[in-house]
Amino acid sequence: MPDCRCGCVPGSGRRTFLATMFAATAFSAAGAAEPAAPADPALLDDIVAANRILYDQGVVDGFGHVSARHDKDPTRYLLSRSMAPALVTSADIMEFDLDSNAIDARGRTPYLERFIHGEIYKVRPDVMAIVHSHSPAVLPFADTDVKLRPMNHIAGFLGEGPPVFEIRGTAGAESDMLVRDNKIGEALAKTLGSNAILLMRGHGSVAAAQSVKHVVFRAIYTEVNARTEIQALTIGKPDFLNAKEAAAAMKTNDGLVERPWALWKQRVMSK
Amino acid sequence: MPDCRCGCVPGSGRRTFLATMFAATAFSAAGAAEPAAPADPALLDDIVAANRILYDQGVVDGFGHVSARHDKDPTRYLLSRSMAPALVTSADIMEFDLDSNAIDARGRTPYLERFIHGEIYKVRPDVMAIVHSHSPAVLPFADTDVKLRPMNHIAGFLGEGPPVFEIRGTAGAESDMLVRDNKIGEALAKTLGSNAILLMRGHGSVAAAQSVKHVVFRAIYTEVNARTEIQALTIGKPDFLNAKEAAAAMKTNDGLVERPWALWKQRVMSK
Amino acid sequence: MPDCRCGCVPGSGRRTFLATMFAATAFSAAGAAEPAAPADPALLDDIVAANRILYDQGVVDGFGHVSARHDKDPTRYLLSRSMAPALVTSADIMEFDLDSNAIDARGRTPYLERFIHGEIYKVRPDVMAIVHSHSPAVLPFADTDVKLRPMNHIAGFLGEGPPVFEIRGTAGAESDMLVRDNKIGEALAKTLGSNAILLMRGHGSVAAAQSVKHVVFRAIYTEVNARTEIQALTIGKPDFLNAKEAAAAMKTNDGLVERPWALWKQRVMSK
Amino acid sequence: MPDCRCGCVPGSGRRTFLATMFAATAFSAAGAAEPAAPADPALLDDIVAANRILYDQGVVDGFGHVSARHDKDPTRYLLSRSMAPALVTSADIMEFDLDSNAIDARGRTPYLERFIHGEIYKVRPDVMAIVHSHSPAVLPFADTDVKLRPMNHIAGFLGEGPPVFEIRGTAGAESDMLVRDNKIGEALAKTLGSNAILLMRGHGSVAAAQSVKHVVFRAIYTEVNARTEIQALTIGKPDFLNAKEAAAAMKTNDGLVERPWALWKQRVMSK
Repeated sequence: MPDCRCGCVPGSGRRTFLATMFAATAFSAAGAAEPAAPADPALLDDIVAANRILYDQGVVDGFGHVSARHDKDPTRYLLSRSMAPALVTSADIMEFDLDSNAIDARGRTPYLERFIHGEIYKVRPDVMAIVHSHSPAVLPFADTDVKLRPMNHIAGFLGEGPPVFEIRGTAGAESDMLVRDNKIGEALAKTLGSNAILLMRGHGSVAAAQSVKHVVFRAIYTEVNARTEIQALTIGKPDFLNAKEAAAAMKTNDGLVERPWALWKQRVMSK
Repeated sequence: MPDCRCGCVPGSGRRTFLATMFAATAFSAAGAAEPAAPADPALLDDIVAANRILYDQGVVDGFGHVSARHDKDPTRYLLSRSMAPALVTSADIMEFDLDSNAIDARGRTPYLERFIHGEIYKVRPDVMAIVHSHSPAVLPFADTDVKLRPMNHIAGFLGEGPPVFEIRGTAGAESDMLVRDNKIGEALAKTLGSNAILLMRGHGSVAAAQSVKHVVFRAIYTEVNARTEIQALTIGKPDFLNAKEAAAAMKTNDGLVERPWALWKQRVMSK
Repeated sequence: MPDCRCGCVPGSGRRTFLATMFAATAFSAAGAAEPAAPADPALLDDIVAANRILYDQGVVDGFGHVSARHDKDPTRYLLSRSMAPALVTSADIMEFDLDSNAIDARGRTPYLERFIHGEIYKVRPDVMAIVHSHSPAVLPFADTDVKLRPMNHIAGFLGEGPPVFEIRGTAGAESDMLVRDNKIGEALAKTLGSNAILLMRGHGSVAAAQSVKHVVFRAIYTEVNARTEIQALTIGKPDFLNAKEAAAAMKTNDGLVERPWALWKQRVMSK
Repeated sequence: MPDCRCGCVPGSGRRTFLATMFAATAFSAAGAAEPAAPADPALLDDIVAANRILYDQGVVDGFGHVSARHDKDPTRYLLSRSMAPALVTSADIMEFDLDSNAIDARGRTPYLERFIHGEIYKVRPDVMAIVHSHSPAVLPFADTDVKLRPMNHIAGFLGEGPPVFEIRGTAGAESDMLVRDNKIGEALAKTLGSNAILLMRGHGSVAAAQSVKHVVFRAIYTEVNARTEIQALTIGKPDFLNAKEAAAAMKTNDGLVERPWALWKQRVMSK
């Protein structure tokens, strides 16, 4: 583990570049909580589309959220105010620092669990977008000791199976299960480690990736894979992708996310 | 058990206030069966929306019903005439006393099973709205001895698992399974006790809550949780929320029902 | 078993009346194959609606069919030409005698398996409408020795569980599984007996009832019940309705078919 | 096994005719890579419709593809450029030789896995259309040793159960699972043999047939049958069609593909 002031995880391809950015922006962030320069409108468009796509594809319902790291300031992230994802517009997207303090809230209420996002962005400079959801078929894997593993190449990002976060370790055994402060968020981010996906016992899951399109891809196919793995487990003993197949498949698929994105976006934007 | 003329369940937070209201209204109710003052139009709107939402979300089909306690008279409740919930309009909503006699029926036919509603309103002054349905994934829990328990915080209202009502205890073993009189309804309400959810063997389920929005939330997530728990049980042994986690989560979520309601309502009202 | 020239099943409530009608109409049917008097347009409307409803509700897909006994001549029945049910219009509905010969075909191709309908109408004067489908969740019960039984009162018509027709008994073990002649149809009708539902091994199922609305109700809830029973069997040992509960529930529900029909019809006719 | 320069599989009804065509066209194909005469517009229409139908019916999502052998030159095939099937138009359809080289690509990017198509067309002159998909319910059969077998006559084309292709045999145990060259495609085609369906471990499946309509039928009902068989296996031991029943049923259904096609096409073309 190298000495790394942003707590980044070794092995990220974009680590050196981002560590430099962190060092620079950390300085200005230490001043007043002023908004960063306006985010790229294309990024805001992607966040809005992601909210609607995740609903349309059954990953989020009235609950769940998707964020992106700010493209002008890596110590800030963008996340909707507290509302159903399917109804989000660009005017609902708020800016937060990495401690999840709202910048220029203008009366908008933030999600109670925004700390999931802030704490992961702190320690994973490679992560540019995060989804939190209660997508239904994933819950059986969060609540049992059965591993969620890739049934095919599309879910290669699952690797040898995501870790499971047990909130009792930080919040005790009488909590309301919510990641409602930075301390719990920090523990969650630690459990996530360098993985793409994290399961949360009694709660749901988190997906992390290098862009909004990639994280939407991962959140959707985590749910799709879970449904299929449950079916496989009821009839026999599935032969999953091994670790190297999973890694190779993830790399290939990371280059193909535009293909399903075009379809998913066309579905929600034509409504 | 305190002496309580309305048969209310000890432990309800709103008990004292409501007990007073009951005492007052019980008097006028002893007179002629006149309609109460007109219900708040917003309440009627909620009941209509609830009917359509419950259909859209797969809780009711051609059968099932949702009621609300009258906001001007706690000894009255509001419930559609006998028809498919998805087609209900405000003109279809009838007023009943707590013995489930129709007030001013004007030729409209009531549901055969309205006694479910009346008898619960009698003994649960904290309950302001009730859903009865045959939502499909809940039936396996009504017909087996497997407990329906919260897979995540959203279903905290399930507590340590709803009780199951066996109609044979009052209607015998040759009935048509319907709660078609006050006697059966009374037994059902007794089995419900202070729970939010009740399962009915060979029939379906009941949800009870402090408002129409809350009861819709509970009815929908009872079904969602049932689907997910069935999947979990096929692959392993789920670690459910414990009683304190469930109670804390219910409390938190009771403050968040507007969020999914906005989505659910937007879906059905744009059709 | 009484002497009954139409082969009717004892125990039908409408038997005597219909037996008389059969005796009368059998005479004219013995003459030339002339069309009966025009069917009631409301009956044709019901058949068209039934075709579309059964598709909309997932009972039929590109295959499957629904017939009604002719209201002017009980020795005739009405059934679409060979086509996908969802696309049927009144111009597609053909008239057949009970040997399943087309009357006035006008170039329209009949379904290969129309003999299912004719042979049941021959021996079940109480039956006024029939659905044949491959509805998916029913197949596991047709292909295993597990009984399809009522999970709740809505499916009371399932009684103690439908019989299963094994086509090998008449068509041998190398057939294409189709009920493609009167001989196989006769064996199928014999297996159906006085039941409402029949399962067909390696094929699908048949529903029979006293009207188009009733048979649609039964076909839909056979599928709904099958889905739910599969879920129940994966988690435990369900306590089904007993025979008397099932019979009482069927009787009650037979009086309530208009309620879901209004919903189902509104869905397909607004498209 | 006869001496057969095109590697065709003995037993195909159209073998002699096609072998002659192969011999003739092989000569011209040896020259420059010029486009064949324009394909029948009706064939292009079928390919476009097939892409949309397969999405609408849940066989493909953002991934998967469907091809047809060129009607003017059996050594060429037609396949969309790399994009989501639901969005394909006739302008996206490219021509390939049987080594899967694009003819007149005009900047369009081909699918990475087009070799599935080319290598099957090489050795199966009876095959005129191919679908590759990751249809979800089929994966449990690709990843376990449980046989996918016909639950009813509609899936007779499954015979005694499709073979499973293990890519490790040619690509090793560290591949990205893709059929990304002719060598892997050749091994896949060899495993397919004379079957209609092939499962791919850790990946998905392939359907092959004598026309676009037939292959769409097979791809859809492979998925439908898989869902139903999983349900059957959870409740008991299904009695599948035997080999002769399956063969007879396939023959009958091959004559009925227009019926569901009319429905499927109407659904997607009215959108």
